[in-house]
Amino acid sequence: MITVSQIAESLKGEIVGDPDLVVNGVCELENGVDGKISFLSGPSYFRYFNTSRVSVVIVNSDFDLPANGKTLIKVGNPVYGFARVLEMFSERPEYPSGVDKKASIGKASLGDHVTIAPLAVVADGVIAGDGCYIGSGSYVGSKCILGKNVTIHANVTLYDGVIVGNNVTIDAGTVIGADGFGWVTVEGKHRKIPQIGTVRIGNDVWIGANCTIDRGTFKDTIIGDGTKLDNLIQIGHNASIGKHCLFAAQLGVAGSTTIGDYVTIAGQVGIVDHITIGDRCVIASKTAVFNSLKPGSFVSGIPARDHKSRLRQDVIINRLPELMKRIRTLEAQIIKGTGKE
Amino acid sequence: MITVSQIAESLKGEIVGDPDLVVNGVCELENGVDGKISFLSGPSYFRYFNTSRVSVVIVNSDFDLPANGKTLIKVGNPVYGFARVLEMFSERPEYPSGVDKKASIGKASLGDHVTIAPLAVVADGVIAGDGCYIGSGSYVGSKCILGKNVTIHANVTLYDGVIVGNNVTIDAGTVIGADGFGWVTVEGKHRKIPQIGTVRIGNDVWIGANCTIDRGTFKDTIIGDGTKLDNLIQIGHNASIGKHCLFAAQLGVAGSTTIGDYVTIAGQVGIVDHITIGDRCVIASKTAVFNSLKPGSFVSGIPARDHKSRLRQDVIINRLPELMKRIRTLEAQIIKGTGKE
Amino acid sequence: MITVSQIAESLKGEIVGDPDLVVNGVCELENGVDGKISFLSGPSYFRYFNTSRVSVVIVNSDFDLPANGKTLIKVGNPVYGFARVLEMFSERPEYPSGVDKKASIGKASLGDHVTIAPLAVVADGVIAGDGCYIGSGSYVGSKCILGKNVTIHANVTLYDGVIVGNNVTIDAGTVIGADGFGWVTVEGKHRKIPQIGTVRIGNDVWIGANCTIDRGTFKDTIIGDGTKLDNLIQIGHNASIGKHCLFAAQLGVAGSTTIGDYVTIAGQVGIVDHITIGDRCVIASKTAVFNSLKPGSFVSGIPARDHKSRLRQDVIINRLPELMKRIRTLEAQIIKGTGKE
Repeated sequence: MITVSQIAESLKGEIVGDPDLVVNGVCELENGVDGKISFLSGPSYFRYFNTSRVSVVIVNSDFDLPANGKTLIKVGNPVYGFARVLEMFSERPEYPSGVDKKASIGKASLGDHVTIAPLAVVADGVIAGDGCYIGSGSYVGSKCILGKNVTIHANVTLYDGVIVGNNVTIDAGTVIGADGFGWVTVEGKHRKIPQIGTVRIGNDVWIGANCTIDRGTFKDTIIGDGTKLDNLIQIGHNASIGKHCLFAAQLGVAGSTTIGDYVTIAGQVGIVDHITIGDRCVIASKTAVFNSLKPGSFVSGIPARDHKSRLRQDVIINRLPELMKRIRTLEAQIIKGTGKE
Repeated sequence: MITVSQIAESLKGEIVGDPDLVVNGVCELENGVDGKISFLSGPSYFRYFNTSRVSVVIVNSDFDLPANGKTLIKVGNPVYGFARVLEMFSERPEYPSGVDKKASIGKASLGDHVTIAPLAVVADGVIAGDGCYIGSGSYVGSKCILGKNVTIHANVTLYDGVIVGNNVTIDAGTVIGADGFGWVTVEGKHRKIPQIGTVRIGNDVWIGANCTIDRGTFKDTIIGDGTKLDNLIQIGHNASIGKHCLFAAQLGVAGSTTIGDYVTIAGQVGIVDHITIGDRCVIASKTAVFNSLKPGSFVSGIPARDHKSRLRQDVIINRLPELMKRIRTLEAQIIKGTGKE
Repeated sequence: MITVSQIAESLKGEIVGDPDLVVNGVCELENGVDGKISFLSGPSYFRYFNTSRVSVVIVNSDFDLPANGKTLIKVGNPVYGFARVLEMFSERPEYPSGVDKKASIGKASLGDHVTIAPLAVVADGVIAGDGCYIGSGSYVGSKCILGKNVTIHANVTLYDGVIVGNNVTIDAGTVIGADGFGWVTVEGKHRKIPQIGTVRIGNDVWIGANCTIDRGTFKDTIIGDGTKLDNLIQIGHNASIGKHCLFAAQLGVAGSTTIGDYVTIAGQVGIVDHITIGDRCVIASKTAVFNSLKPGSFVSGIPARDHKSRLRQDVIINRLPELMKRIRTLEAQIIKGTGKE
C-alpha cells in the first residue's frame, strides 16, 4: 500500500489535496483510472487534465490550474518524478544470484556478488567487477574486462578483449567486438585487414538489444560515458562516440567517424565513415549524413541539410506539379506576346 | 510417390490431363522441369506457360488456355494450392521431442508434449501450454506465459513476464521484452524511466529472426492476432500493432504508435512515435511516416506522401535540370522583350 | 621484437632507411608515434607525411618524396602490406580447441581438428569438415553441411540443412536458414507458404554479426564465393548473391532478387524483390533500388537514379526556394508587360 504522502516524501514534492489517499497503480493521464497516479509533462497534455478520471497527478512546481478534485504532487521535473513512481510500482522479478552450475567458466577473476546465469560462458582471463550479472546464453570472450555492476542480459556476445566500464547494461542479442569490416582487394580477391583493436565502453552506458559494435582496426572503437543506445544499432570499427548521447533504433555509424557529446540521433539514421559530428547535434530520423556537422547542427533529409531549409524545400517539392504548370503558362504567354509584336 | 490425383484430391482441384502422372518435385514455371509441378499465379506468368518444360501446373479455376501437353489442376487459389503442395514435398527434419537433460529449467509449469531443446533455459514461474517447443540457446524469462503450440527457435530471448498466445512462431535471435528506450535528462545525465509494462503477443503471430520488441513503460506493447513480422524489425515500447498485418524486414515502429488491422508495410520503413496508422494502410519500402495516416492510405517517400502524388513529384524532380533551363530561357526572353519595347 | 628488415622480407618490400630499426607497434600516420609503423595509402594522406612522428612508413613502390628522416618500406600495395603487418602485431588470444564436455552433440560427422566450444549445439546429421570451429551458444541444425575451416562465432543459429563452403566465417548472432517471408492470404488470414529450399554459402565468404539470411521457398538462397557481408544485413528468400561482392551494414535484399559479381553496396541500402543487379554495380548508401540495374551502374537516391544525374538534381533541389522566386518575378514581369501593351 502506497500513499500520496509516501510518494511526495520520496520525490520531495508538495501535496495539494489528500496526503492519505492510497495509490494502487500508474496510468496515462488521457485514459486515467480512479485510484491511480499519472503525470503532466507539459502544456500539450493540459487538455486531458480536467476530464481524466485519474486520482493523483504529478505536476510541475509552477502548475496553477484548479485541481478539479484531483490530488496533485508538485515537483521540479514531473517526468523524472513519475519515473521514480514507476520504480515503486514495479513488480518485475529479480534475477537469481550466484554462479550457476550449468554455466561454463574459465580461469576468470570474478568480484563479489557476481552472478553467472545458467548456460552462460565466461572464457579464460576475464575480469568481472563486483555486482556483475552475466545472463543465460551469453558469451564473454577471453580477457574481457567488466567494471562494477555490469548487467549483461541473455544471449549477448562479447568477443575477446572488450573493455566495459561501471554500471553498464547490455541488452539481449547484442554483439560487441566482432571484427570491423575492413578489406583490401588484391588480384580480384578481398583480403582481410586484421582488426587488432578492441571496443571500449565507458561508465553508465546502456546498449539495447541486437546491436553490433565492431572492434577497431588498431585504434579502439569507443562509446563514451552516459551514452544510451536503443536496439539494432550498428557502430562501425574505429568509431568514437562521445558522452551522454541518445541514439535511437536501427541507426548506423560507419567506420572511423567521430561523434561529440550530447548528440541526439533519431531512428534509422545513417552516418558515413570518416566524418565528425559536433557536440549537441540533433539528427532527425531517416537522415543520411554524408558530411561533417558543426556543433549544434539540426539536420534532416537525404542528404542531410539544415532542418529548416529542408522543410522549405519540401514545401516546394510538394508544389512541383503546380510549378510546372506555371512555367508552361509563362512560356505560352511569352510566345503569345512575341506573336503580337 | 505422389500422383496428380493425390494432389488434386488434397486440394479439391479439378484435373485436366493425366491423373496417374507421378510428380517428383516442385519447380518454377519459368525454368520448368519435366516430371515436376509448378503453378500459375496470374496473367503476368502466361508467357512462360507454353515454353515451360514442367509437367503439371496448378492454375486458377477460370484458366481456359490450351493445356499444350501439360496436366492442369484447377483450384480456387493457385498460390495457396501450391503452398500445400510444397508441404507434401517438404523433407525438412522434425525436431526431437521431450525435455533435454542439458536444458536448464526452473520451477515452471509445462503442458503436455512440451519440448525443451538442449541448452535452452526456462526460468522460474514460466507457464507453457501443450505442444510448445523451446529451441537451443533460448531463454524464457521468469513468469513468461506461452499459449499452446508456441515454437521458439534457437537463441531467442524472452525477458520476464512476456505473454504469448497460441500457435505463435518466433524465429532465432529475436529479443522480446527488453526495456523500452525511455530516458529523462536531469542535470545533464540521462536517467532511466523504468519500463514496468510487458509485451503481449496474440494468437497465430509469426515473428522473424533477430527482431526486437520492447516492453511497455506501464501499458503493454501489443502485437495483434494473425500478424506476421519479417526479420530485423524494431517495435518500440507501448506500440500497439493490429491484427493480420504484414511487416517486411528492417522496418521500425517507434514508441507509443498505434497501427490498425490489415496494414501492409514494406521493408526499411520507419514510423515515428505517438501517431496512428489506420486499418488497411499500405506503406511502400523506405518510407518515413511522420504523421498519422487515415485508413486505406497508400503512401511512399520521405516524408510519406500519397503514393500517386509522390510519383508525379518524382517525375518532375527528374526533369529539374530541364526546368531550370526553361526558366533561364524565359528570363532571357523577358529581358529581350523588355529591351525591344 | 620485430625489425624493419623482418617486415620488409615478409612483404617482399624495398627498404629505404634503417633495416635494423625495431618496430614496436602500429599507428595512424596522422597521429604518428615514434618507434611505430604506419602506411601511406594514397596522395590524400601526403599532407600528414612530413609532420608525422611515426618511424616507419609502408609506401607505394613509386613513392618518390624525400623520406624526411623516416624509414620507408616500398611495396606494390601499401594497404595490403599494412594488413599483413597488423597480423604480426596482433595479440588476440586463440580459441581453445577440442570438443567441450558442456557442448551438446548429436549423431554428427566431425572432421579432424574440429572445435566445439562450451554450450554449443550440433544436431543430428551434421557434417563438419576439418578445422571447423563452432562457438559457444551456437546452434547448428540437423543435416547442415559445413566445409573445411568454417568458423562459427558465438550465438549463431543455422537452421536445418544449411550448406556452407570452405573457409567461411560467420560472426556472432547471425541467423541463417530461417523460413522466408512467404504468405498467401485466404479468407482474411495469412497462410504460410512452406519454405522447403535452403541456404547455400560458397567458399571464402564472410558474414558479419546479427545478419539474417532466409532459406528459399523451393530454390535455394545463395551467397557466392568470396562475398563479404557486414553486420545486420537481411537477405530474403530465393535471393542469389554473386561472387566477390562487398555489402555494408544494415542493407536489405528482398526475395528472389539476383545480384551479380563484384557488386559493392553501401550501408542501409534497400533492394526490392524480383529484380536483377548486374555485375560490378555500385550502390551508394541509403539508396532504394526499385528496378533492375545494368552491369556497371553507379546509382544513389530514393528511388535509385544514375549517381551523377541525381547529384545535379540535388543541386537544384537546394535552389528550389530561389527558383520559386524567379518564377514569381517572371510572372510579375509578364503581367507588367501585358499591362503596357
